[in-house]
Amino acid sequence: MAVYTHLGAEELAALIAHYDVGALVSAKGIAEGVSNSNWLIETSGADAAVESGGARFILTMYERRIELSDLPYFLGLLDHLSAKGCPVPRTIHDRDGAAFRMEAGKAVALIEFLPGVSPNTPTPQQARSVGEVLARMHLASGDFALSRANTMDFAANASLLDYCGKRALASIDPGLPAMLEPARDAAALDLSALPQAQIHADLFPDNVLMLGDQVTGLIDFYFACSGAMALDLAVTHAAWCFDDASSYLPALGAALVEGYESVRPLEAQERALLPEIAKGAALRFVASRAEDWLDTPEDALVTRKDPMQFAARWHFYDEFGADLFA
Amino acid sequence: MAVYTHLGAEELAALIAHYDVGALVSAKGIAEGVSNSNWLIETSGADAAVESGGARFILTMYERRIELSDLPYFLGLLDHLSAKGCPVPRTIHDRDGAAFRMEAGKAVALIEFLPGVSPNTPTPQQARSVGEVLARMHLASGDFALSRANTMDFAANASLLDYCGKRALASIDPGLPAMLEPARDAAALDLSALPQAQIHADLFPDNVLMLGDQVTGLIDFYFACSGAMALDLAVTHAAWCFDDASSYLPALGAALVEGYESVRPLEAQERALLPEIAKGAALRFVASRAEDWLDTPEDALVTRKDPMQFAARWHFYDEFGADLFA
Repeated sequence: MAVYTHLGAEELAALIAHYDVGALVSAKGIAEGVSNSNWLIETSGADAAVESGGARFILTMYERRIELSDLPYFLGLLDHLSAKGCPVPRTIHDRDGAAFRMEAGKAVALIEFLPGVSPNTPTPQQARSVGEVLARMHLASGDFALSRANTMDFAANASLLDYCGKRALASIDPGLPAMLEPARDAAALDLSALPQAQIHADLFPDNVLMLGDQVTGLIDFYFACSGAMALDLAVTHAAWCFDDASSYLPALGAALVEGYESVRPLEAQERALLPEIAKGAALRFVASRAEDWLDTPEDALVTRKDPMQFAARWHFYDEFGADLFA
Repeated sequence: MAVYTHLGAEELAALIAHYDVGALVSAKGIAEGVSNSNWLIETSGADAAVESGGARFILTMYERRIELSDLPYFLGLLDHLSAKGCPVPRTIHDRDGAAFRMEAGKAVALIEFLPGVSPNTPTPQQARSVGEVLARMHLASGDFALSRANTMDFAANASLLDYCGKRALASIDPGLPAMLEPARDAAALDLSALPQAQIHADLFPDNVLMLGDQVTGLIDFYFACSGAMALDLAVTHAAWCFDDASSYLPALGAALVEGYESVRPLEAQERALLPEIAKGAALRFVASRAEDWLDTPEDALVTRKDPMQFAARWHFYDEFGADLFA
């Protein structure tokens, strides 16, 4: 959570003037996103680009980790899904039709504000709704014209853990080096024969806005990529269906999969591979959290996320995954 | 700028339910305030507590530096000034009439959201408006029942610099230890015979919301105290009327004082003391910035503010103050 770049009121007002959204009324830097600076913007509205719900927007400045060349994919996918009725924020295009602009040498995009809050302790009914929306998103992405490789695929995870090295991994937790071999095993998995779509690939509760049981927004598509739909379901399962102590919450797991299958039933080959895919999905967060842990000074102000949380989930899937997705 | 405490959606919803403001619709942690965690909250509204302008609020959690026993003063002052038509955010009281509640062991208050943005490079007309509003606030505070001592008065500044020590001050800048003696001189100033009011005492542009030339909000009253009105004008002058290189901006200085005097003309004794008060006001920020500098690790993520910026302003007031307020 951060605002990395200071943009003064005058700069923000000048930036907003490039969009047909009225004049700047309020701008608050918000503590969301680890790779971006974000402002919650309010404008006077009164134009074609503003629909019901008020003239509020999220202004995102892309600071790091995000390749400029990926922005047409990310922002285009939001527009595509939004146009198909999926609850994702659309991009507001500027008066020249551009989805992003350059400001102070960095790309910025003005994005629809969506209501809703992210559940901290989701209920089964909330998990079911997320499953439904995830499946709808997969189906809606079918005719999206662009594609993007998954830069955090299973092979990348194995490489990342390998790059960290056993000694450094052991410094985080003595049980962590044991994840290297499973990561190499996962890297050998071929998901290319499974049904493909554009996938979110990082659908933690933080990235879902809800009002009650209803999903009002899927957000933060900056890991979105082309890939196996079953991988997206597995990531979401690993992210939603365990408590903080990484105990499995069976009612959530069942509801998530049921919700998904109520829109798009899984194929037999997906079901068969899901235990291995879920293990790989857990390892994805073992790897990225291990890297972040080693990159973050012990006394930094940001909270480091423990990679062992997802090592525990890998162990769960290793032991019970075959029954889980049967 | 920070959000120090994580409050989940469920906790926020339960907290909001104590107020007659409708249900929680959105909550974004905002990057404002160095002593507080702040959320921009949106609710479904539809009740007596919500007036035009939409059901938006700032939820503030008091984290540090703020004494619980001072909250009735700070929040009561907002309500008093707001009721008198000053552009300050009023406090939303809970269903039991309380101005603040305890949550997770910390005090929280729900505060009116005001539109506007803080000018980065104020214009003279904006400075004039701020002067006017500051004087109106002073007059409106006349019959406020509570009082609070200034914990950052000139004596406290001298003590703080003294406590830092010459060696540590020199480590920040070789010119900084020379501020010790002027700080002791300022500590000897007696402002008690000057006209008194409740004063903001920290009215930097960051703490003023504006739409165009109009002040829509004075915010962040957490240094507010009982004291000489001339001190508040001097603090505002030191905070508004110099550029980043601490060059004096005469058009802003003149406009600020003119705006103030259009509502409350200065008395002869205030005018006579203003050069010395302005020097003391500059030293207030020399002292607090020096302390923050020494408290903040060099590699911390927050930007340290240079105390020498206000040492330069002290030198300016020392040389030209007598002409400035004549």
